[in-house]
Amino acid sequence: MPSPNSPLFVSTEVLVANHWHRYCRDEFRLNDGSVGEYFHVDMPGACGIIPLFDDGSTVLVEVYRYLLDTHLFEFPIGGMQPGEDPLEVAKRELAEEAGLVARDWQLLGRFAPYKGVSNEIDWFFLARDLTWTHTEHEPSEQITVHAMPLAQARQVLFEQTLLDGQSIAGLALLDRFLAAQGR
Amino acid sequence: MPSPNSPLFVSTEVLVANHWHRYCRDEFRLNDGSVGEYFHVDMPGACGIIPLFDDGSTVLVEVYRYLLDTHLFEFPIGGMQPGEDPLEVAKRELAEEAGLVARDWQLLGRFAPYKGVSNEIDWFFLARDLTWTHTEHEPSEQITVHAMPLAQARQVLFEQTLLDGQSIAGLALLDRFLAAQGR
Repeated sequence: MPSPNSPLFVSTEVLVANHWHRYCRDEFRLNDGSVGEYFHVDMPGACGIIPLFDDGSTVLVEVYRYLLDTHLFEFPIGGMQPGEDPLEVAKRELAEEAGLVARDWQLLGRFAPYKGVSNEIDWFFLARDLTWTHTEHEPSEQITVHAMPLAQARQVLFEQTLLDGQSIAGLALLDRFLAAQGR
Repeated sequence: MPSPNSPLFVSTEVLVANHWHRYCRDEFRLNDGSVGEYFHVDMPGACGIIPLFDDGSTVLVEVYRYLLDTHLFEFPIGGMQPGEDPLEVAKRELAEEAGLVARDWQLLGRFAPYKGVSNEIDWFFLARDLTWTHTEHEPSEQITVHAMPLAQARQVLFEQTLLDGQSIAGLALLDRFLAAQGR
């Protein structure tokens, strides 16, 4: 990922580079003309998927989130590597995390999940015409797959102790899409 | 902020500490018993505010986001320092960013905006019984305040080129709260 194309950009230094992202310190121009520093995560992006079966049910994954020491109910989501195509990442993540293959894909929208610290952009897709396959979870992942009606998934997503912002935003995109379709 | 209380925790190392957050490398136990590394942002949290006037209008801030090199329309939000009370942070941020003081505060909910990389928890508040005061923007901030009907704010938040995930999630919490109030 390139440094920001911002007219305020002065310089960037990669402090840490790992498999998942880069952590950088930029110098940038403040409003008063002086130079400030900006510490940030440089991240290619991620793809979230909302699977929707013909009968109106969906799939949530229950994931142990180490940083929060809690299990979160979420829509499947996975990070991109630089240069990857969002739809291909979405297909891979839906198969690996949820064990699903979809023939009908629709982009619901894109949002920045953490605008103050990361340049990540999340792409959320609606996946339909689904068939089950087998999951491929990584050793670092603790994931359980739950199929349920969309109304129940909404309840689970909103009523868990700590909510997942990315899934809530994705659900809002889905609601808007379905409302526009008149369903 | 302490290191995760997770049973998988092995060790943590603070790689970078700055005014806004800490960037850490943890070692943690994988499912197969081996030890993996986890690079993450350790961040006390943030408070988002949805102001709602008696006439049903709200306020969005238009913020230049350096990391994305774009102006985003957002609900006011600001980071917490360790040990700060979320409601006090919300009051401060609403005054500084939007120039508003509220006498009626309601917690709408809490979510993790970026569960894979940051332990940040966002607290979203509804602020009512509002009066205007003066803004106090920092030199690093480019912010314009826009008052508008809630329906228009919804349109602006969803129809901008790149969406703000935190604001969309906050709006979903508001909608759920208002629906429960029967309005």
